[in-house]
Amino acid sequence: MPINDIRIVLVEPNHPGNIGAVARAMKTMALSDLALVRPVDFPSHLADRRSMGAKDLLDKARVFESLEEAIGDCRLVIGSSARERSFPHSILEPRECAAQLVGEAADGEPAALIFGPERTGLANRELDQCTFQVRIPANEAFSSLNLGAAVQLLCYEIFMASRTPEEALASIPKEKPSLQIEMEHFYDHLERALDARGYLEGEMREVTLSKLRRLFNRGRPHSGELKLLHTMLKMIHNESE
Amino acid sequence: MPINDIRIVLVEPNHPGNIGAVARAMKTMALSDLALVRPVDFPSHLADRRSMGAKDLLDKARVFESLEEAIGDCRLVIGSSARERSFPHSILEPRECAAQLVGEAADGEPAALIFGPERTGLANRELDQCTFQVRIPANEAFSSLNLGAAVQLLCYEIFMASRTPEEALASIPKEKPSLQIEMEHFYDHLERALDARGYLEGEMREVTLSKLRRLFNRGRPHSGELKLLHTMLKMIHNESE
Repeated sequence: MPINDIRIVLVEPNHPGNIGAVARAMKTMALSDLALVRPVDFPSHLADRRSMGAKDLLDKARVFESLEEAIGDCRLVIGSSARERSFPHSILEPRECAAQLVGEAADGEPAALIFGPERTGLANRELDQCTFQVRIPANEAFSSLNLGAAVQLLCYEIFMASRTPEEALASIPKEKPSLQIEMEHFYDHLERALDARGYLEGEMREVTLSKLRRLFNRGRPHSGELKLLHTMLKMIHNESE
Repeated sequence: MPINDIRIVLVEPNHPGNIGAVARAMKTMALSDLALVRPVDFPSHLADRRSMGAKDLLDKARVFESLEEAIGDCRLVIGSSARERSFPHSILEPRECAAQLVGEAADGEPAALIFGPERTGLANRELDQCTFQVRIPANEAFSSLNLGAAVQLLCYEIFMASRTPEEALASIPKEKPSLQIEMEHFYDHLERALDARGYLEGEMREVTLSKLRRLFNRGRPHSGELKLLHTMLKMIHNESE
């Protein structure tokens, strides 16, 4: 799902290094639309350096004189704020926030996620321009995420929310566990190998075989791993011949 | 749910600033057990400065000569790695990783989440000591999260996974939307106020009332908001008297 239309807006960022860190965080999560409202120092070499390969986002970042201009074309605007404000009714958690933004992007609409100055955060007057507010759950005794970390977290949730079920599955190329028929073939081999070494004699035979089955079942070996195990069984077997 | 037993282990961190950033990220998410394996420069003023109020974690951080010592008392060890390795079978996503770690902590067992040196990441030999590997989903063309960002993200997922349903609900003190009986009382008042101003005459009466109902229903006003709306209706009403 395309998330290019989701805009990250920084209001009065004080430190150019943070702008670079934000660009890097956005790019790792496939976002690219960065808007800056009255940045204190931009463009800046420090921002470029901290962006670590995300300079392309800084080069095309747009600078605005007011928040109104930066979000004028959006229908959905979410403001990030760590502080509790007087409108708890409209506070979202990061996952809800991401679902809202991704839903809007799916409709082909631009949508904005805005962050305030490092020390003070968004002012009430700026939060009043937001459809919702998002708050990152954190340690109540120490909730001071820095700007780059907050952007990283919320962009990660956006990226996660944007993945189709197919993409989510494909992101980790899991090898398929073996079929039960292959497992049974392996257990036959295991029994023969241990029998050949006289290990399964006596009354504990069934209990031992059952224990081994449970151990290997739990490991859910894929075909390459099963092949390795078969090779080991052959070694056990051959030694006794 | 207590997550104090979840240990963050940094293997050969090169930059003391990153150790400070990691301490800060951990503390924001209520984690406190930091272990360092052969840190290049620690203790360090730079680490203290970057920790921004999480110096207590640095003060009690333990330093080890080997990874084996740092994780010897754990049954569950998860290694963070951005690169695809040859064992896709045991790669978890951040949420699965967090669920595993929190489950272990709930059993009263220490568990470790380990991170490699900034440039190279964990070596294969170190990943071989892990129960599972975790990979943060990211832009395939640009997946370079820095160490502090990776720790922040995974600690956030741990914090989210550790919350009981009650804590999750309490984290955002939502005011309850009004009862339907209160809404009906409001709609009665609305109709009376608009009638008093002659706004509801003619054939569009029912359509207009229905439109207004849908609008206010969607907003799900809580009792304080409903009180504001009643006050506005009184203003409409009184002007006509």
